[in-house]
Amino acid sequence: MTGVSEAVGSAGAGERVTAPGPRVRLVGHSVFTPPVDVPGFEGTWTTDAADGDALAEFAGRACYRSWSRPIPETADNAGYLDHILQVGHLAVLEHSTATFYLTGVPLSVAAEVVRHRHFSVSQLSPRHQAEAGPEIVEPAAVAADPGLHARFQQAVDDAAAAYAALLEVLDPAGAGGRPGVRNPLSGKQAREAARSVLPLATATDLVVTGNYRSWRHFVGMRATDPADVAIRTLAVTILRELQQLAPHSFADFRISALPDGTALAASPLVRDA
Amino acid sequence: MTGVSEAVGSAGAGERVTAPGPRVRLVGHSVFTPPVDVPGFEGTWTTDAADGDALAEFAGRACYRSWSRPIPETADNAGYLDHILQVGHLAVLEHSTATFYLTGVPLSVAAEVVRHRHFSVSQLSPRHQAEAGPEIVEPAAVAADPGLHARFQQAVDDAAAAYAALLEVLDPAGAGGRPGVRNPLSGKQAREAARSVLPLATATDLVVTGNYRSWRHFVGMRATDPADVAIRTLAVTILRELQQLAPHSFADFRISALPDGTALAASPLVRDA
Amino acid sequence: MTGVSEAVGSAGAGERVTAPGPRVRLVGHSVFTPPVDVPGFEGTWTTDAADGDALAEFAGRACYRSWSRPIPETADNAGYLDHILQVGHLAVLEHSTATFYLTGVPLSVAAEVVRHRHFSVSQLSPRHQAEAGPEIVEPAAVAADPGLHARFQQAVDDAAAAYAALLEVLDPAGAGGRPGVRNPLSGKQAREAARSVLPLATATDLVVTGNYRSWRHFVGMRATDPADVAIRTLAVTILRELQQLAPHSFADFRISALPDGTALAASPLVRDA
Amino acid sequence: MTGVSEAVGSAGAGERVTAPGPRVRLVGHSVFTPPVDVPGFEGTWTTDAADGDALAEFAGRACYRSWSRPIPETADNAGYLDHILQVGHLAVLEHSTATFYLTGVPLSVAAEVVRHRHFSVSQLSPRHQAEAGPEIVEPAAVAADPGLHARFQQAVDDAAAAYAALLEVLDPAGAGGRPGVRNPLSGKQAREAARSVLPLATATDLVVTGNYRSWRHFVGMRATDPADVAIRTLAVTILRELQQLAPHSFADFRISALPDGTALAASPLVRDA
Repeated sequence: MTGVSEAVGSAGAGERVTAPGPRVRLVGHSVFTPPVDVPGFEGTWTTDAADGDALAEFAGRACYRSWSRPIPETADNAGYLDHILQVGHLAVLEHSTATFYLTGVPLSVAAEVVRHRHFSVSQLSPRHQAEAGPEIVEPAAVAADPGLHARFQQAVDDAAAAYAALLEVLDPAGAGGRPGVRNPLSGKQAREAARSVLPLATATDLVVTGNYRSWRHFVGMRATDPADVAIRTLAVTILRELQQLAPHSFADFRISALPDGTALAASPLVRDA
Repeated sequence: MTGVSEAVGSAGAGERVTAPGPRVRLVGHSVFTPPVDVPGFEGTWTTDAADGDALAEFAGRACYRSWSRPIPETADNAGYLDHILQVGHLAVLEHSTATFYLTGVPLSVAAEVVRHRHFSVSQLSPRHQAEAGPEIVEPAAVAADPGLHARFQQAVDDAAAAYAALLEVLDPAGAGGRPGVRNPLSGKQAREAARSVLPLATATDLVVTGNYRSWRHFVGMRATDPADVAIRTLAVTILRELQQLAPHSFADFRISALPDGTALAASPLVRDA
Repeated sequence: MTGVSEAVGSAGAGERVTAPGPRVRLVGHSVFTPPVDVPGFEGTWTTDAADGDALAEFAGRACYRSWSRPIPETADNAGYLDHILQVGHLAVLEHSTATFYLTGVPLSVAAEVVRHRHFSVSQLSPRHQAEAGPEIVEPAAVAADPGLHARFQQAVDDAAAAYAALLEVLDPAGAGGRPGVRNPLSGKQAREAARSVLPLATATDLVVTGNYRSWRHFVGMRATDPADVAIRTLAVTILRELQQLAPHSFADFRISALPDGTALAASPLVRDA
Repeated sequence: MTGVSEAVGSAGAGERVTAPGPRVRLVGHSVFTPPVDVPGFEGTWTTDAADGDALAEFAGRACYRSWSRPIPETADNAGYLDHILQVGHLAVLEHSTATFYLTGVPLSVAAEVVRHRHFSVSQLSPRHQAEAGPEIVEPAAVAADPGLHARFQQAVDDAAAAYAALLEVLDPAGAGGRPGVRNPLSGKQAREAARSVLPLATATDLVVTGNYRSWRHFVGMRATDPADVAIRTLAVTILRELQQLAPHSFADFRISALPDGTALAASPLVRDA
C-alpha cells in the first residue's frame, strides 16, 4: 500500500496535462490517550477502538460519566457510535480530526472545497511557480474521447502560451523578457494579471483539516450528487480513507457504482442539504 | 447617485470582454429600533447615529447598562465607537451587517472572497448559462496596454471557442450540436467538463453578507496589500460604501492613492494579518 | 403594542425576585434595498415582501439571475421562500439577521443561548453591579406552588446574604466594609470570588444577533423539546417575533400549547438535532 | 507523571466541597504521517519535530512546495514555526488540535470557556446526577481565609439543602419524596427547576477540542488578565500542557508568577483582545 489514493485516471506521458487528477493522502489525524484517573472495567477506562473513534466515544460518555457499559447494544465502540449517529448527537464527532494532502486538484474543484467553512485549508500559493508551467487536470469525460481530448489539449496549450506571453511583458525580469515595458508591475502583480487567462482546469494543492462532523457533512453533500463528477469522485476517495481511519464514525455511508463507472456514496442518516 | 460603485474601468463595446470589472451595490443592512423600556435622557434611549452604528453602541452599553453618558469623550456615537475600536471590543460590531451584490467578479477574485469564513455568500451557479457566452473581466494592467489587450482578447476568444466546441459534443441537446455522442452526460455534467477550459477571468456574481467586524477584517487584509490589485480595488470600493453606511464603525480606515493610480486603505488599529 | 414580549409570568412586588422572566425586544434587523440596475417587471426588480424576506429572495434569485418569475408557484415571496425551505437551500437565509435584547435571563438559560456558535452575543458584564443586589428569575414550576415559592425565596435570600458577606470582606472599599483584610483583591477579583455563591437563577441581559438560518436552528432545537421549559418558552417567544418580522422565512413553524399551559413549536422541515 | 494537572489547590476531606479545582488531562491530539511521495533530503520529507508541530510545518511548506530548506533560519521546525508566528501566518496552526478533559470546572468558568466559538465542547449533562449531590469548587481567595471559607461552606450547604427540598416536591419518584404533588413534572423538568438554586461554584466536566490557533487565542485572552483568577489559572495550566505537546507552536508564551502566587502568561506576538 502506497498511502496515496488517486481520485481519477492518469494522463499520457509527454503532454502538458501532467496532473493525473487529485491524489489524496492522509497526513494527520487525532489519537486518543485515556486519562489515568477515569475508571474502567479493570483500571483505566478504555474501549475496543482506536484514535478518533475512541475519542468520540470518550467525549460522549463524559457527558453522563457513563464509563461503565450497562446496555449491551452500546457496550462496544461500534454500537456506541452507531447510537450517536442514529440520535444525531454529532457534536461528539467534532473532537476528532483528519487532515488530507490533496494535490492535482483543479481550481474549479478547489473553490468548492474551500467553501466548506468548518474546514481549515492551506492552499498552494498562486505565487508558487512550477518550472514546467501550469499543471492541468483533464476532466474524465473529456479524456475518454480522443476528439475532445485533442480539443482540450489545444485549449490548454493556447492558454499556457497566452500566460507566458503576458508574463513576458508584465514581468520581464522574472520571465527573462524584453525590458522597457511601459507599465512595470511587481512580480506578484504581473503573475496575478497573467493568471487571468489560465483555465479552471489548472491544478492546485490543498491541505484540508476537518473534524469528523465536518467530513461527514462534506461527504454527505459532495459524494451524493450524480451531477458533480469531479468533486464527487474526490469525496468518495476521501470517504474510503476516512472509513479506514475511523470505521465506526463513518459506518453508515455506502459506496456504490453508477452506470458510467464513477462511484457515489450515501447514508440513510444524512438528511439535510 | 446611482447606488452602483464600479471597482475598475470599463471595456470597449462590441467585444467579448463585457464585464467592466466588479460592480458593488449595498442591497441589505441592519437598522436599529430602540426598545421602548430602556431609559434615555428624556424617555426612550437613543443616540446621534443611525442603523448599524447605533446598534453597535446599544450592544456595547447593554454590557454595563451604561445608558446615561457620564464621560464626555464617549457621550456621542462617534466617541463611543472610537473607544470601542481603540480597546478592541470588536464583538459589539458583530450585531450590524451589510450585504453587497457584487457582479462582474473574476473567478480568481471570487475564490479569495469566499475563503473569508465569517461571510455568508450566495454565488451565481455554474449552471446559469449566459446567452452571450461567458463574461470576462480584463485585468486593469492588461487593459492599459494595447498589445496585451489584444493578446488577452485572443486568449479569451480561444477559450470561448473551445468551451463551445466541448459543449457541442458533450451536450448536443443543450447546445444544438450533433447527436450520437458516445458518452452522453447530463447537461450539468457536460457544462462542468466544458467549463474546465474557461479562464480565471470569467465573471461571476456574489451576494456577500458580513457583520461589521468581518468587513473590517476583510478590508484590513485585502485593502492594504499593494501586491493584490484586483481584490484590493474591490475592497476599497466596498470600504467606501461601508464608510457611508456606518461612518463611525469604519472611521479609522484612511484611503490613499498609490503611484499607479490604484487606491489602498489602512488603519492604525488593524494589527494582525 | 409595547414592543416588549414577556416569556413567562411576573413576580410579586416587594420581593428580591424582581425579574419577571426573560423579556424579548427586537432591536435590530435587516432591510433590503433593491439595486437600481437589476431589471424587474417594470423598472427595478422588487418583490411583494419587505426586509429580510425580500433580501433572502433576492439572494436566491441572484444564484440564477432568475429575476423574472416564470413559475407561478414561486412567483411571489411566500411561494419562493417556501420552495427554498422545502429544498433546504438555507444558505440564502443567512443574509438576513435579527437582533434581540433579552433581559431577565437566568444564567442557566444564558449558558444554553451562548453555546449556539453562529450567534453574536453581548452579555451584561459580571462587573456590572445592580444597586439592589442580584436580580433573580424564579422558575415557573416553583412560582406556581406557594410552598416551593417560599423555599425558593429563602434560598435566594440566603445566597444574597452570603454574597454580601463575602464581598464585604473581599472588597471592603467597594462594599463599605471593614478595612484590614488579610488578602486584598482587586474589586473585580473580589466580585468574581463572591459571585461563586450566587444561584443559577441570577438574571443577566443578552443582546443576541443571528441570521435567519441560525434562528431557525435555535428555534428548531430549543422550542421543540418538552423537557426544557425555560429555554423553550424563550425560544417560542422569539419565534413569535421572528414570524412577525419575516413571516415567510419562518412560515413552517407551528406553535401549539402543551397540557401544562406552556407553548411548543415545531416544523416538519426541521429534521436534525 | 500522572498525566493530570491540577489548576488550583485541594479541599479538605469530609466536606461538601469535594472538587479541588479544575483538573486538566490531555486526552486527544493530532499526529503527523508524512506522505510517501513528497520528497525530502533523503527519501520522504520529514522534520525534526513530532505531531502537531510537524503537521503545521508541513502545511506551511505545502503552500510553496518549499520542501527543501534553503534558508538556515527556518531550516528546522523551531525556526520555521517561529517565522510563522512572527509573520502571523496562523492558518497553518489550524491543522493541529488538542483535546482536554477538564473536570471540577465551576459553572461560572465553564460559561467563559464555551463562549470561545472555535472550540468543540462536550459538557457534563445537567441530567447527570451525582449521588453525593452537587460538587462544589471553592474560589482560592475564599479558601485562603478561614472565616470566608466557613461562610462559603454554609452558603453551599444551604443551597444543597434547598435543591434537595425542591427536588423532593417536584420529583417525588426520583428523589423518594412525598406523592400527590399538585404539579408533577418530568424528572428532567424537575431537576431543571431545582437547579435554579445551585450556586455558580457548582462543578461541571468539559471535553474541549481546539486547534492550535484557537488555543493560542484562548491562552492569549484568558491567561493574561490579572483580574480573572479562576479562568487565568486554568488557561495557564492548559498552556503548560500545550507547551509540552507542541513546544514550537506555543514557544512565544512566557509564564510568570504574580505577587499573589498565581501565574500569568503573555506573548509579545499576541496583540489583539
